[in-house]
Parts: sequence; structure tokens; C-alpha cells
Amino acid sequence: MTIHFQREMDKLKRKILLLGAMVEKSVQLAAKALENRDTEMADKIIAEDSKVDELEVEVEEDCLKILALYQPVAIDLRIISAIIKINNDLERVGDEAVNIAQRVNIMARRPPVDIQFDYILMAEKVESMLKNSLDAMVRLDADLAYKVCLEDDEVDDMKNRVYDRIKEAIVRQPERVGYLINLLLVSRHLERIGDHATNIAEEVIYVIEGKIHRHAEDELKSAPV
Amino acid sequence: MTIHFQREMDKLKRKILLLGAMVEKSVQLAAKALENRDTEMADKIIAEDSKVDELEVEVEEDCLKILALYQPVAIDLRIISAIIKINNDLERVGDEAVNIAQRVNIMARRPPVDIQFDYILMAEKVESMLKNSLDAMVRLDADLAYKVCLEDDEVDDMKNRVYDRIKEAIVRQPERVGYLINLLLVSRHLERIGDHATNIAEEVIYVIEGKIHRHAEDELKSAPV
Repeated sequence: MTIHFQREMDKLKRKILLLGAMVEKSVQLAAKALENRDTEMADKIIAEDSKVDELEVEVEEDCLKILALYQPVAIDLRIISAIIKINNDLERVGDEAVNIAQRVNIMARRPPVDIQFDYILMAEKVESMLKNSLDAMVRLDADLAYKVCLEDDEVDDMKNRVYDRIKEAIVRQPERVGYLINLLLVSRHLERIGDHATNIAEEVIYVIEGKIHRHAEDELKSAPV
Repeated sequence: MTIHFQREMDKLKRKILLLGAMVEKSVQLAAKALENRDTEMADKIIAEDSKVDELEVEVEEDCLKILALYQPVAIDLRIISAIIKINNDLERVGDEAVNIAQRVNIMARRPPVDIQFDYILMAEKVESMLKNSLDAMVRLDADLAYKVCLEDDEVDDMKNRVYDRIKEAIVRQPERVGYLINLLLVSRHLERIGDHATNIAEEVIYVIEGKIHRHAEDELKSAPV
């Protein structure tokens, strides 16, 4: 491949990493906004999401331009095909951070509920999965990518425990059902961020090993509550 | 392009249509299983999902092979790039049908709750969106695709009404919170099917008009409850 092609590929990789860093930041801020009931920070996350959207469109158009202009094959083709999908996942991670921010805005208007559900721990877990999936992408590190896939089960366990806690809390305080359902939905948004990190990790494995990792473990997974 | 290329493209289009028909069927059956509390049907949906997974992997590998072998450009490149993403959305629609089936299995073990939430109507709505998005793809019908994008707002309204109904029901019958939360989650799974149909419709518009439709209307949308 030509030097032009390499230059375009380097530019593309820098852009997808920038997008990754942007949504990682959004998730971090969403977790902070949640912890501190900080509506100002929540509004900032919501406002900044349009930048994520713009960069996603740009990355996708770049991928198609490169495919059309240079007709890459083998590993280069696999990388671009993976970037198309990782790009999509990252944009949706940004959307989930916005969803959490919107729930923070709803919950902050009402008094907090004392509940033994460590959403901060769950947020930290999915943040670390997202970070590791992006690191695995940068370093083409299959071991780290496999680690992310395994961690997804821990997040599912956390989500199940959260569900039980919230169900109990609603029975005790049915008048706080609105607040508690919002908290339940926060846990689902966090879970989805974990899912997207897993998708990214699977794409990384696919680039490295040239085979599609998805669905291989589906049978082993239990039903969500 | 060569006659071989055309033959491969025709085969690819037939496969993605088959995948579309498969997940459309799963969604229909999931709605029926929900209506009739039919765990046998729910188990069937769950068991059949592996076929959806297999076909998704096959379609994706075909796309990459065609890209590598024929280096298509312009409209053909756009079609393949759209198929890569539609393929992904269809597989996730299948997952959401499985999620609904799993909730049916949980709910069927408990007595029903009398609630004024017409999930059958909501299921019919997203079924029709999915059908229309696939028809728009087959006929390259931009008008129909735009129609699907607009219908997504109706589904969001339905989801908001469901949320209110379920919140009220929980306050009235806090002892039925587990059942009612499962019903709430069904409405979220249905909503996501509507989202995937919208993604497919947007991809169809992109193929026809060569521009990316996504995010254009994001600002107009209100916050989810």
C-alpha cells in the first residue's frame, strides 16, 4: 500500500481514538454527576454529545473514502471493517452517558433514597471495561480484549443484584417508585456501556485473530432478570 | 462490474432479506407469547436465535469477501457498508425478541396483573416499523424509510405512557413490583426494536441519498423518562 494510504490510516486511527477518549470522558462525568446529583455537569454531558455525533459521522465517511480510494485487503480491510463498527459502538456509549445524565436531572429534583446499591462501583467497572477495550484496540492486545469479554459477566451479576435491591426498596417505599425506577434504568444504561465495551473487545479479537468471536459464548450466558 | 460481482451481490441481498424475515418472525412470535403467556413459544424463540447469530456472521463475512475481491465503489460500496450495519441491527432485534421471551417465561410463573397498558398495540407498532424498514430496503423507497423514522416518536410516546401506568400500578400493588418491572422492561425491549428499525431506515436513506441521515433530528427529541 502507498504512503498516502498509510497516512490516511494513521489519521483514521487517531480520530477513532479521539472519539474513544471523548466518550470515556462522558461516562466518567456521568458517574460523577450521578454521585453528586450534579445537574450542571449532567447538562454539560448532554450539550457536548453533538460533538460525539459529528465525529462519528466523520469517521464513517473517512472509512468509506479509504475503502473506495485504496481498496485495502487482508488485515487493512479487517481493521477498517472493525473501525466502522467500533465507531458505532462508541457513539452509542455517548448516548448512554446522555441517558444517565437525563436521569440525574430527573432524580436531582427529588430527595435521595437510601439504598444499598453501589452504582458507583458498577460505573467504575464499566468505565474500566471501556478503557481496557480502547487500550486493547490501540495495542492490538488480544489478552486484554478477552479480559474485557469476561468482565461483562460481572457487570451482569451487578445488574441482577441492583434489580433485587431496587425491588425490595420499592416494596418498602412504594411512594418513591419514580425515583427508584430511574435508578434501575441507570443500572441498565451502565450495563449497556459494558455491552458496548465487550463489542469493541470482540472486534479487536477479530482484527487480531481474523475470526469472528461473537456468539461463541452466548449459550453459556444465563437469562437476564 | 463483472457478472460474478452482480451474482455475489444478489446472493448477499437475498441473505440479508432472509435474516430480516427471520427476526421479523421472532418479534411476531414474541408479541404472541407475551399476549398468551405462552412459555412454549418463548422457549422456541430463545432456541431459534442461534440460527440468527449464524446467519449474521455469514453475512458479515460475505460483505468482507466482496469488498476484498471486487473492490466496489460508489453506490455498490454504500450498499455493502449499509448491509454491514443493517446486519448488526437485525441481529440485535433478534436479541430483543429473546429478551422479551425470557421475560414472558418469568411472568408466566406468576398471576397476571390487570393493567391498562396496551403492550400488544406497542408490539404491533414496532413490528410494522420493522416490516416497513425492510420493505424500504428491498424497494429502495426513501419515502417509506422517512415514515419509519417519524414513527419512532410515536413509540417513544407509548413508552412514556407505559412508564406512567406501571408507576401507578406499583403504588397500588407494591407486592407485584417484580411482575410490573418485568412488564416495564418489555416496553423498553419493544422500544429498542423500534430504534433498530429506525437505524435500518436511516441506512436505506443513506444508500439512496448518499448522505448520512443520523443525528439530524436529535436536537428535536425530548428526554426519555
